[in-house]
Amino acid sequence: MAKPEQTAITPIRSVDYPEWYQQVVRAADLAETSAVRGCMVIRPWGYALWENIRRELDRRFKATGHVNAYFPLFIPVSFLEKEAEHVEGFAKECAVVTHHRLEAKPGGGLQPAGELEEPLVVRPTSETIIGAAYAKWVQSYRDLPILINQWANVVRWEMRTRLFLRTTEFLWQEGHTAHETCDEAWDETIRMLEVYKAFAEECMAMPVITGEKSEGERFPGAVNTFCIEAMMQDRKALQAGTSHFLGQNFAKASGIQFQSRTGDREYAWTTSWGVSTRLIGGMIMAHADDNGMIIPPRLAPSHIAVLPIIRDESERAAVEPFCRDLADRLRCLTYHGSPVEVELDLREMNAGEKSWQWIKKGIPVILEIGPRDIANDSVFVFRRDKTRKERYGMPREGFLASVPELLDDIQHMLLERARAFRDQHIRTIDTREEFTAFFTPQNADKPEIHGGFALSHWCGSAACEDAINDALSVTIRCIPFDFGPKDTGTCIQCGKPSPQRVIFAKSY
Amino acid sequence: MAKPEQTAITPIRSVDYPEWYQQVVRAADLAETSAVRGCMVIRPWGYALWENIRRELDRRFKATGHVNAYFPLFIPVSFLEKEAEHVEGFAKECAVVTHHRLEAKPGGGLQPAGELEEPLVVRPTSETIIGAAYAKWVQSYRDLPILINQWANVVRWEMRTRLFLRTTEFLWQEGHTAHETCDEAWDETIRMLEVYKAFAEECMAMPVITGEKSEGERFPGAVNTFCIEAMMQDRKALQAGTSHFLGQNFAKASGIQFQSRTGDREYAWTTSWGVSTRLIGGMIMAHADDNGMIIPPRLAPSHIAVLPIIRDESERAAVEPFCRDLADRLRCLTYHGSPVEVELDLREMNAGEKSWQWIKKGIPVILEIGPRDIANDSVFVFRRDKTRKERYGMPREGFLASVPELLDDIQHMLLERARAFRDQHIRTIDTREEFTAFFTPQNADKPEIHGGFALSHWCGSAACEDAINDALSVTIRCIPFDFGPKDTGTCIQCGKPSPQRVIFAKSY
Repeated sequence: MAKPEQTAITPIRSVDYPEWYQQVVRAADLAETSAVRGCMVIRPWGYALWENIRRELDRRFKATGHVNAYFPLFIPVSFLEKEAEHVEGFAKECAVVTHHRLEAKPGGGLQPAGELEEPLVVRPTSETIIGAAYAKWVQSYRDLPILINQWANVVRWEMRTRLFLRTTEFLWQEGHTAHETCDEAWDETIRMLEVYKAFAEECMAMPVITGEKSEGERFPGAVNTFCIEAMMQDRKALQAGTSHFLGQNFAKASGIQFQSRTGDREYAWTTSWGVSTRLIGGMIMAHADDNGMIIPPRLAPSHIAVLPIIRDESERAAVEPFCRDLADRLRCLTYHGSPVEVELDLREMNAGEKSWQWIKKGIPVILEIGPRDIANDSVFVFRRDKTRKERYGMPREGFLASVPELLDDIQHMLLERARAFRDQHIRTIDTREEFTAFFTPQNADKPEIHGGFALSHWCGSAACEDAINDALSVTIRCIPFDFGPKDTGTCIQCGKPSPQRVIFAKSY
Repeated sequence: MAKPEQTAITPIRSVDYPEWYQQVVRAADLAETSAVRGCMVIRPWGYALWENIRRELDRRFKATGHVNAYFPLFIPVSFLEKEAEHVEGFAKECAVVTHHRLEAKPGGGLQPAGELEEPLVVRPTSETIIGAAYAKWVQSYRDLPILINQWANVVRWEMRTRLFLRTTEFLWQEGHTAHETCDEAWDETIRMLEVYKAFAEECMAMPVITGEKSEGERFPGAVNTFCIEAMMQDRKALQAGTSHFLGQNFAKASGIQFQSRTGDREYAWTTSWGVSTRLIGGMIMAHADDNGMIIPPRLAPSHIAVLPIIRDESERAAVEPFCRDLADRLRCLTYHGSPVEVELDLREMNAGEKSWQWIKKGIPVILEIGPRDIANDSVFVFRRDKTRKERYGMPREGFLASVPELLDDIQHMLLERARAFRDQHIRTIDTREEFTAFFTPQNADKPEIHGGFALSHWCGSAACEDAINDALSVTIRCIPFDFGPKDTGTCIQCGKPSPQRVIFAKSY
């Protein structure tokens, strides 16, 4: 038997997937836990990734007619209470501000003082506080639509947290729109879901399935919730973004009323939609391998690391200038309208260790340049989507000419690899026996390894949904728009007629 | 006597300056108060201005070697307590989170539940929470410097708030750096102050005076605080940005220690520096007039409004296509590396009212296009830095060729006008009588109208500073680096020897 290749991350995915995830985050310097329960520190490499996600989404939101604004961090408890399902959904996990100063405590230390008349909640989401502003802004149908997005931090007091995937504080964007008609609000809801899908696939290289949530998984207060769902490498589903059709529920709760074209007072129709720093967790679990992070070129904080390989100090005088010149020339190139970003790493440290640092950070391309490369006027190329054994040399000029194409090829390969993995682990299942076997771990030591996504029939009842969840910890991820066979059948749980197949999976 | 020209803002500056300010903010749709005490809603036009400020500052921070990251919103009370002056400075005005959920209250409604073991403060500034991370990251001198900036929201529980100038929650950036040596940290502190000065003058068209704060005005916990100070149109000073040399105070409080080149354990030297949404308040009070906001072109969300003037519906067919074409051609132009942003306003409403809306919003250039302009192939130009009477027609092609130059000229005029105003209201004062008269309103009805900035001698004692403040509500804004006469003299308060003149002013 061949000796297993050494890997940069311990444990590897197949040994302990959850721990592998934490180690990838750590080794790539993406984020770390903080001294504050459940809150993370997003380190510069992770934050640069978020900045790129933000820039690209922001461009797409503006291209679809949205503008940004900013609303208060705090929400009076009475605002939350205006929508019954909404407050029910968020009351159990919110940070509550009750005082506005600290005073000396008898015996030393400080204690809260200056109690507020009404407690404030740190926003878990902003429907109610934004609704209060819209109620003031909207008088007539001429004031509609309002198409606003907010980039903000939000807080949900999670008991079990995990970097990026579930944290007490996270960064996100939340779109909040108000419309004259039901149809317009519906179209907006679907349009933004499509924006998310396009972003996930084109930029994150992460294939997603769009669909509607079952009633049990709806956003509290929404009429319909739509989502994009992706498969992670442990075959679990990640809800990567949601778009909510809110009907007139929140307009009624906040009093967003307008004079219609016929002179009547009507309630507006609203939507909300959001994605968060959770996307970074999704990107890690879609692409990273046993050597660490792999960042899709379209979102990479930096595209190419240029590493001089100097075995003897006498070589430095020739190698460094060649590398500098190479980096300068690379920086003159553009990739999807922005400059190619280059890390020229001249630190004096072991070349192997240096190379592994960039591998673990997931930079798409690493160029190792030694005296022999210079003699040949060539570069030695490592594509992060392939193995180290597949590194290759090529003439410098040819390489320079091919950079945008190379990056696009890596982007494409990551998407196709993730899509192939997903498709391989989706099964159309029609019997309860097969369904149970599919979701039952084959190996008690690795409870996370199961079949993947099942496309099975469901009668539409919450009771069947709950029974399946209780038995197998499997939920309905979505009723897909356009994925899988379009047939009728019988419910995998109760055997009653079912109008469509849905996606069942274990999930984050 | 000529009838006074009608103005878009009531009251005008000379009648009620504070109320004029509120009305300018409102009329320009920049921001509004919210239902939450002291927190503002930043409306899309105001937020777009903040996005431009942010983009331009971010570019300058990155050009000086900084990267962005993100740290938790919450700070454990015990962290604040680590630096004695720091906690003293912020304990009296902070939002305190004491519970993590809401539960039903007997009799209806909700009440806080799930009390936290240790209360958390919503960050008023992040020295202590960021210090805790740096303490982990820094082991050796090789890990230094750390040059990180954070864009974030912060909360200071202000009792008297005013849109942009002083709000409970505000948006800002806070740079936090850690260095091997005192000199490096000192240089960083001054470098960032210079970045702020250059930004204020080049982009905001707001002249500023750089200098050091007196001990009484220092950031709590800093060794030295430096600032940029600008004069508003009511002759009061606005502190527009600060840069703090923190010495080893916060490194000791947080335990940021490293192994030095000589093998010793040493504490790092740190700095912090910040500007906030307050800058928007400064921009308003530096440039706006009795017709509303005036936005410097370098930061304007949009540069040019194109308004069709249609007196008769039969004219629409000719005027609108001409305007569309004009807008398209303008959008192909670039201004300081970005596309010229154009508002093509085709709303069917009164042309005068439409024009006044854009005037109040402060867009730098308005083009009014009617049938006569089309016949002449010309455009009718209104520069927002001049009066409506100074509008002029010019050939379309000539105008298109001159746009970047025109915008730069407006930018330049705004800076020079603000500088002239400031210089006109700074006086070198050497007697206490003149000093008192300078700061005493001449008209009891308008208590805000006084002399402006006084360049006077000060002995350096806090007692003299306090006595002047008590008598005249005037403070030392800064000990200027390079402004005013460089001479020695005698303290304006006590008559003792003074090594330098300082800037005295009333302030925001």
